[in-house]
Amino acid sequence: MTSPVVSINGELRGADGLHVSGLDRGVLLADGLFETMRGRNGRIFRIDRHLARLEAGLTAIGIPMPPALPEWTLTALAAAGHQDARVRLTITRGLGPPGLLPPNPVRPTVIIAVWPMADVAGPAPAPVSLHVASGRRNERAMSAGLKTLSYTDGVLALIEAQRHGADDALFLDTDGHCSETTSANLFAAAGDGLMTPPASCGALPGITRSVVFELAAALGIRCEERAFDLEDLLGASEAFVTNSTRGPVAVARVGDRAIGPGTSGELTRRLAEAYRLLVLRECP
Amino acid sequence: MTSPVVSINGELRGADGLHVSGLDRGVLLADGLFETMRGRNGRIFRIDRHLARLEAGLTAIGIPMPPALPEWTLTALAAAGHQDARVRLTITRGLGPPGLLPPNPVRPTVIIAVWPMADVAGPAPAPVSLHVASGRRNERAMSAGLKTLSYTDGVLALIEAQRHGADDALFLDTDGHCSETTSANLFAAAGDGLMTPPASCGALPGITRSVVFELAAALGIRCEERAFDLEDLLGASEAFVTNSTRGPVAVARVGDRAIGPGTSGELTRRLAEAYRLLVLRECP
Repeated sequence: MTSPVVSINGELRGADGLHVSGLDRGVLLADGLFETMRGRNGRIFRIDRHLARLEAGLTAIGIPMPPALPEWTLTALAAAGHQDARVRLTITRGLGPPGLLPPNPVRPTVIIAVWPMADVAGPAPAPVSLHVASGRRNERAMSAGLKTLSYTDGVLALIEAQRHGADDALFLDTDGHCSETTSANLFAAAGDGLMTPPASCGALPGITRSVVFELAAALGIRCEERAFDLEDLLGASEAFVTNSTRGPVAVARVGDRAIGPGTSGELTRRLAEAYRLLVLRECP
Repeated sequence: MTSPVVSINGELRGADGLHVSGLDRGVLLADGLFETMRGRNGRIFRIDRHLARLEAGLTAIGIPMPPALPEWTLTALAAAGHQDARVRLTITRGLGPPGLLPPNPVRPTVIIAVWPMADVAGPAPAPVSLHVASGRRNERAMSAGLKTLSYTDGVLALIEAQRHGADDALFLDTDGHCSETTSANLFAAAGDGLMTPPASCGALPGITRSVVFELAAALGIRCEERAFDLEDLLGASEAFVTNSTRGPVAVARVGDRAIGPGTSGELTRRLAEAYRLLVLRECP
């Protein structure tokens, strides 16, 4: 694997110096937020929306938004030099006293990592299979709706999914509604349109999810936020998942049940193609 | 504040070199576990129980237990030289590929931090006030029962508690039962004995909680794990919280309601005193 390019607080570092304090609250308490973004040809797809979501989240949890983020991000992307890049912005509350009490003032730590990624103009990603996670997503968590560093449950669900031979895990919320996967939003066909779980089911307000709303509107595909349960998903004629690194990707199976044709449905194909064209147009 | 002593993978470092990779899965994904322990006069109170819980948790999530942990911990404690010390062991899954997929093999990162702490033989900690957190603890999470690095919700609940003038936040589980505070287990008087939330209410199996079971048995105080709700707590004649850094500490208030006498009740006083004597006997 190619080594990633990393910048810490705006400073680019070599592979042996990519370091933060072992007492950073990001390490000790997952006290921070992140964004994963798609870079291409020196641009970041929908960077304004990612930064707006990040700033809203940081404000909500009391971490100041580092003003140089856009510049540091584009500098790291340029230094990496990949045509297509996975770009991760991580912002933590930095150092503090022992225990949970936050420091005052907060001096955030900024970690920007850039990895190479598959060409968005290349072959569409293969459909994925989902395992239904044994644990539930908490739609009433303190941090519901925030993209925090607390990803232990996602990692454990993915490990469980792999043990079941699946590509990813689907979380239900505590009421049994479909929520999202470990790292992607979920859409399912409903009538002649689409439905996706609302924030009240523990779904993160994904940037690619919002791009799908845009594209569906442009294509005349009805798309609504609506709570639905596992049975509704299993009976859907097609389903797909979305995140910033892959765009819309068909769901072939959930557990031992094929979804619709068991491959990419028509709405999924149209939206995945529209997404690809949009990225190529905005990141030429 | 005195600078903490920190050891990374068994190596003691100066204050400017206490560093881990900015791409460590502890920072990026909260992918790891921790223990907070009480050190005194070069010993760690109940270190075997802490290490047994840690090893069971690491096994559950697929991180190998670093064999030199006891030695590294006692070396860091000795280097710090405090009479009473707060000792935190943090174990992460180390480095991995981008995204959630775990590396294979896993090379864990071990961070040991030692801070000075109040003399256990000194004045008893003042009773605390609790705010009921607006978000819920998820008793059906993938990581329920594990002491993971995913502490964002605890940090946010503590910030919310402080805004309400309280010392700590009490979490209810998704069914409305009392669970625990951001960093302590909860006990409340029930009849002439005590009750504490079971693991099925999202309570962590605290080491000090288990010591209270021991001490209560020795003192002839009935103590049972039982689900109870906020009304039961508000009506209790006394309540206390426990963790490894402070032992049993009385709960004076929950929201705007005094608990019992609004100060330390008799069971709390007896158990706090018995705890202090036990620490002094085992860590002379």
